[in-house]
Amino acid sequence: MPEGRPVSVVVDAVGGDHAPSEVLRGVSMALANDPALTVVLTGPADVVEPFTSGSSGRAQAVPTTQVIEMAEHPATAVRAKKDSSIVVGARLVKEGRADAFFSAGSTGASMAAATLVMGRIRGVQRPAIATVMPTAGPPCVLLDVGANADCRPEHLLQFAFMGAAYASVVLGVIGPRVALLNIGEEPTKGSVLAQESYALIAESVPNFIGNVEGKDVLSGCSDVIVTDGFTGNVALKLLEGSSRILLSQVRDSITSNPMNKAAAAVLRPALRRLRERLDPDTYGGAPLLGVNGVCIIGHGSSKARAVSNGIRVAAQAGRGALTEQIAAAIGDN
Amino acid sequence: MPEGRPVSVVVDAVGGDHAPSEVLRGVSMALANDPALTVVLTGPADVVEPFTSGSSGRAQAVPTTQVIEMAEHPATAVRAKKDSSIVVGARLVKEGRADAFFSAGSTGASMAAATLVMGRIRGVQRPAIATVMPTAGPPCVLLDVGANADCRPEHLLQFAFMGAAYASVVLGVIGPRVALLNIGEEPTKGSVLAQESYALIAESVPNFIGNVEGKDVLSGCSDVIVTDGFTGNVALKLLEGSSRILLSQVRDSITSNPMNKAAAAVLRPALRRLRERLDPDTYGGAPLLGVNGVCIIGHGSSKARAVSNGIRVAAQAGRGALTEQIAAAIGDN
Repeated sequence: MPEGRPVSVVVDAVGGDHAPSEVLRGVSMALANDPALTVVLTGPADVVEPFTSGSSGRAQAVPTTQVIEMAEHPATAVRAKKDSSIVVGARLVKEGRADAFFSAGSTGASMAAATLVMGRIRGVQRPAIATVMPTAGPPCVLLDVGANADCRPEHLLQFAFMGAAYASVVLGVIGPRVALLNIGEEPTKGSVLAQESYALIAESVPNFIGNVEGKDVLSGCSDVIVTDGFTGNVALKLLEGSSRILLSQVRDSITSNPMNKAAAAVLRPALRRLRERLDPDTYGGAPLLGVNGVCIIGHGSSKARAVSNGIRVAAQAGRGALTEQIAAAIGDN
Repeated sequence: MPEGRPVSVVVDAVGGDHAPSEVLRGVSMALANDPALTVVLTGPADVVEPFTSGSSGRAQAVPTTQVIEMAEHPATAVRAKKDSSIVVGARLVKEGRADAFFSAGSTGASMAAATLVMGRIRGVQRPAIATVMPTAGPPCVLLDVGANADCRPEHLLQFAFMGAAYASVVLGVIGPRVALLNIGEEPTKGSVLAQESYALIAESVPNFIGNVEGKDVLSGCSDVIVTDGFTGNVALKLLEGSSRILLSQVRDSITSNPMNKAAAAVLRPALRRLRERLDPDTYGGAPLLGVNGVCIIGHGSSKARAVSNGIRVAAQAGRGALTEQIAAAIGDN
């Protein structure tokens, strides 16, 4: 990856439960970590202007007058609030004034703004949300995790190309292995959607390793796992919920008496490191793939570290020309 | 539950990776735990007869001459091998000579035998496989976990009734709470299947608590969670895989240096108890619901404890008249 090339990322200063303070701290961290990064902040003038004045030119303010709240209907809000931090952010990328967009605000509004303002890449039928999961091996790109509850085989085929492009550009994987999430290993197993998708993907996706089952998702056997947005969303949220519950049960069971408590105290740093490794924040937000510009969506609960990682990922995607890579892969197939 | 009433369970003596030795050990454990239980063993004469001769009349042998191997095509094998331990087992229940059937052999063959030999309960469109999951609260019945990769809303409606009957009879839950697995909480969220199923279930299933998301599956917020067999199978296997990987990462991280190792040794019993609580074997196999007789399918890797728990569950389902309860619920709706 071309680390040192100048890149600019638009950041929605008022997106997320902990905005603007944690977002601004995250921006500072990202700027400190990457000397060739510049940030464009969208948001109310009284939030973005004081910050940029102290940034020695590497942060620029684009004041906006509207804010899209979490509870608003995404598409309606995006159409009505043309001067919101999210819509203006998407437009700056569309107009080539920035290389990528990051927001930890409403996922639906970011998706709607990216789709309506940036538009889809030529040939892409359905943009998809991807997520990068920690596994027992290298991290794995899972998509779609919720943009499309009902899918057709040709959508899953495009998800395969888009996920592979993301793994290559952002995770630096050469020739990413691509798998289809299914409920059996043989090509003839599973739903009609899975069987038809298998045939399509096997025909044209390089390094297709076939079906993987639920038990393989965290094994690290594949760099990209493709599924419909319903199954992918259930899987993602199940993993988030189950690792939280399992780690809390581990904590409860190892602190169940004074001697255990003492032993657990010794282990606290090791367990904290594990929790960090498993924390999705480490991987910095979910990309919306297939739109005509880089759009990275952070979790609403993002704190500074998650924001900083999201900006880093957005910068990597911008530097690596993710959008052009996806356009080329879709155009060729 | 009527604990003391006599009940008889047919056990496939040669089903599973560790058969017959672990199966027979499991039968002995089950007999020791439940004085009103009798077992009918199907399998080769040289396996089942020596065992039953030493069982003081509480185990009966029904020698069979054929064995269905794990790799055989289920329906074909069931049709061809009429004198196999699985087919004869299902027939004994069908003929009223036993109250329930348990096998840790080929899942597909047990399903095919139960469906073809016992038949479906009148009105049931699609039998479903359920599983009982440990959660942060009471255990939860998830179905379908793989019998039906493609479902229609009326199937999910029937799964709701069947799962509720199972929670009531086997887990002893009064008025089980039923939820639909979806990718959002509102009734209008999710796939077309989920939206249409929501409407149907809300109309006629008592104690329907609405949609739950992946993150809620292990929270214990519901006694029954309904989904299609594709999503359910992915979810089940994802949980199996992720808890194994997560616990092994906990083990690795807490034994990463000598001082941690000493602390970990103190915690070993607590972690072992946690692993047992999370072990699906504790909950004793997966019922095939909707067939005209009790059929409990054990994991192929079942050892004695899992077999014993599977037999216990089969006995409970037989005593609680699970089949009649499902027939009544389906007949009324």
